[in-house]
Amino acid sequence: MRYAVLGGGKRLRPLLVWHACAAACDRPKVCLPAAAAIEYIHAFSLVHDDLPAMDDDDLRRGQPTLHIHTSEAMAILAGDALLNLAFAALTRVNIDPAHCLRLVEELTAGCAGMISGQIFDSLPKADPAIEDRDRLERIHRNKTGALIRAACRIGAICGGASADTLSALTTYANDIGLMFQAVDDLIDVEQLAEHTGKRTGKDADAGKLTYPGLLGVEGTKAEIARLQAEAVAAVEPMGPKADPLVAIANLLATRDR
Amino acid sequence: MRYAVLGGGKRLRPLLVWHACAAACDRPKVCLPAAAAIEYIHAFSLVHDDLPAMDDDDLRRGQPTLHIHTSEAMAILAGDALLNLAFAALTRVNIDPAHCLRLVEELTAGCAGMISGQIFDSLPKADPAIEDRDRLERIHRNKTGALIRAACRIGAICGGASADTLSALTTYANDIGLMFQAVDDLIDVEQLAEHTGKRTGKDADAGKLTYPGLLGVEGTKAEIARLQAEAVAAVEPMGPKADPLVAIANLLATRDR
Repeated sequence: MRYAVLGGGKRLRPLLVWHACAAACDRPKVCLPAAAAIEYIHAFSLVHDDLPAMDDDDLRRGQPTLHIHTSEAMAILAGDALLNLAFAALTRVNIDPAHCLRLVEELTAGCAGMISGQIFDSLPKADPAIEDRDRLERIHRNKTGALIRAACRIGAICGGASADTLSALTTYANDIGLMFQAVDDLIDVEQLAEHTGKRTGKDADAGKLTYPGLLGVEGTKAEIARLQAEAVAAVEPMGPKADPLVAIANLLATRDR
Repeated sequence: MRYAVLGGGKRLRPLLVWHACAAACDRPKVCLPAAAAIEYIHAFSLVHDDLPAMDDDDLRRGQPTLHIHTSEAMAILAGDALLNLAFAALTRVNIDPAHCLRLVEELTAGCAGMISGQIFDSLPKADPAIEDRDRLERIHRNKTGALIRAACRIGAICGGASADTLSALTTYANDIGLMFQAVDDLIDVEQLAEHTGKRTGKDADAGKLTYPGLLGVEGTKAEIARLQAEAVAAVEPMGPKADPLVAIANLLATRDR
C-alpha cells in the first residue's frame, strides 16, 4: 500500500481537495484526511488498472507496477485495502458528522463513477444509438471526471461551502476533468507524431475513442481552450482565494506530459 | 454485481446484523441498508478470493465463479464496485449521522481485518516467535472473524445499543467467528475422511494451519463446544430478544455443511 501511494505522481486530486477547501474557508487543514482518501482511491484504481487482466502494465512512473514488485494476489489485496482505507480516512475528518457523512456519499459516487467509466470503456459499443461524441464524454465524465469532481466537492464540503460555491466548484471540476482527458489524448498523438512520424497514438491504434480521433488535433485544442475558459470563469468570482484553482486549470490546459 | 450478490449463500452476516439490531431495539428494519452493506462486502471478498491470482476457483455454490461467468477484468471491477457500494448503502441507514459515521468506521475495521487476515494467511510464517495456536487464531479472528464482528456491532449500533449490549454482542461475535472457522475445518476433515478414507482435508494438505491439525478432531470439537457456550452465555442475559442469536450460535456449532 505504501509502494502504491508513496511512489510519486502529481498529487493533483489531493491538491484539488485542498484548494477547493481553501476557496471555501480559512482553515483548509481540516480537509487533509479527505485529501489522503482521494489519493488512496486514485492509487487503488491505478494498482487494479495495471493488473494483467486489465491493462497489463509492467511500469508506472518509471517503476515496476505493484503486481510486478510483489505479486498479483498482493496487488489485488493492496488495492482492495486502499479503497477501504479511503473510507476509514474520511471518518477522521474533524467536521460535523452530518457533513462527514456527505463526504462518504461523495466518495462513493466518485468511485462508482470511475468504475462505471472503466466498464463502459471496456465494453463493445453498448448502445449504437449513442453518438461517438456523447459516448466519449460519458466515458471521460466518469472514468477520469468522477474522482476529480469528488475531490473538488469533498474539499468544498470540508470547508463548509455554500450551495453556490459548491455548484461553482462542481462546474470547475467537470470542465477540468474533461480537459484533463482531452490534453492526455493530445499528448499521446503529438508525442507519437514527434517520435515516429505517425499521426495516431496507442489509444487510436487500439480503436478507442479519443478527442483527436473525433475532433482532429485543432478541434481538440479548441475544445481544451473552451473548457479551460469555462473552468476559470466558474471560480474567478470567488476572488483571490480561487487563484490556485485558476492556476491549476491553466497548468492542466498547457501541460505537455 | 447482481450475479455475485444474488447467487445464494446462507446470508449469515446480514442475519447477524438484523438479530443484533433486534436484540437492541424494537425497530430492526432500520438496519436493512447496513445488512445489505455487510453482504456486499462478503460478496466482494468471495469474488476477489476466487480470482486466478488468488484461490483460482471455478465454482462457487455450484455455479461458475464470476470471472468464469464474465471475465477476470469484470470480476475485479465488480468486486471493487461492491466494496464501494457497501459504503454507499451505509450512508442510507436512517439513524443519527454521528452513529451512521460509526457504522462506516466499523465496516472499514471489519474489511481491513478481513484483508489483513487474508494477507497473513498467504504469507510464509512471518514471525517464528508466534506459536501456531496464536497464529491460527490471529488469522481467523481477522479473516473470518472481523466481518462477523462488524456485522454484530453494526446491527447493535443501528439499534442504539448501550455500551454493555455492544460489548456482549462483540463477545458473542468473537466466539461465533472462531467457531465458524473451527467447524469449517472439521467439516473439511470429516467429509474427506468419509469420501476418501483420508484423515486430512485440502487445507491440511496445502500445509495451512487448521484446528484439527493443531488440536486433533476431538480437541476441535471441545473447542467448538467451549466457544458455543461462551457465545450463548454472552447474549442470554438479554432475554427472549436474543433467542435468535442463541439459535444461530447453536446452528453454527452443529452444521455439517
